[in-house]
Amino acid sequence: MKETQHIISALVANKSGALTRISGLFARRGYNIDSLSVCATDSAKLSRMTITTTADESTVQQIIKQLDKLYDVIKVTELSKNTSVTRELLMVKIVTEPKQRPEIEATCNMYKAKLIDVSPDSTILELTGEPNKLDGFLNVVRDYGIIELTRTGMSALQRGKGSINDLTDYNETV
Amino acid sequence: MKETQHIISALVANKSGALTRISGLFARRGYNIDSLSVCATDSAKLSRMTITTTADESTVQQIIKQLDKLYDVIKVTELSKNTSVTRELLMVKIVTEPKQRPEIEATCNMYKAKLIDVSPDSTILELTGEPNKLDGFLNVVRDYGIIELTRTGMSALQRGKGSINDLTDYNETV
Repeated sequence: MKETQHIISALVANKSGALTRISGLFARRGYNIDSLSVCATDSAKLSRMTITTTADESTVQQIIKQLDKLYDVIKVTELSKNTSVTRELLMVKIVTEPKQRPEIEATCNMYKAKLIDVSPDSTILELTGEPNKLDGFLNVVRDYGIIELTRTGMSALQRGKGSINDLTDYNETV
Repeated sequence: MKETQHIISALVANKSGALTRISGLFARRGYNIDSLSVCATDSAKLSRMTITTTADESTVQQIIKQLDKLYDVIKVTELSKNTSVTRELLMVKIVTEPKQRPEIEATCNMYKAKLIDVSPDSTILELTGEPNKLDGFLNVVRDYGIIELTRTGMSALQRGKGSINDLTDYNETV
């Protein structure tokens, strides 16, 4: 079956063992994690985790079933790219000679990127958008020389008024 | 000793076991992870991970030493808030009656937040900034009714031209 990228969103208990259990499940079964981000929600007891993984359809359904059985995982669902908003945050530090600054400023304006730090020979640029927009931006600035970069991995919410909290405790659609 | 929030930045091998080893170290020793984000860098073989943790100074130094010894951890360092740029991405879905839309639009303009999805009775807002700016924004929109939200956790780069790659293999300043 064809492997594509899937977005898994989970509400988990904000406990130190939760992340280990979840990442351990991926490692043990040989599932790859492309990106992962986790942070507290509006309730300090709950964290929301977004995982992207490249897998075929049946594998991703297995992953979700197995995640759902884990202690500390309260809700888990797959978010479709068609019915969700997806965003990622990139910060990239590039080599910059002073004479290149206008050119870099123009590039930032085109992408609506922000210039957030300037040193005599480098600049840090910040861009938020869909992951493929970030990839495109990196392709454009790569020629200056990338010193270092950090990406948050994908973050996603289902469009419309639905919420991950609406899922029943055992998500029967999975 | 006084507990404060620390930012740990690490370059790790992009392998499924790396995250388990790292989160396992935190869980076993009872260190808390406030947020974590991990994604590939410009090299597909390397991921960059940003972890925030609340701990006293001596504990965070211990964590860094122990992380540095882990297989798959290539470089690890603490980033100081004073000498780094820190950003986080928030998406929040709030209850919105049509008549509240102008008010919400004005709030977004004040914070330079973006309105990225509108449904008859909800909107999704996106904001990138320092984590305390995000907290402030959430306080302002909370009264509308938060349906769900997702935050990436903190992302950080050292200001100036330095890079995590400049660290020696064993980071002797730690």
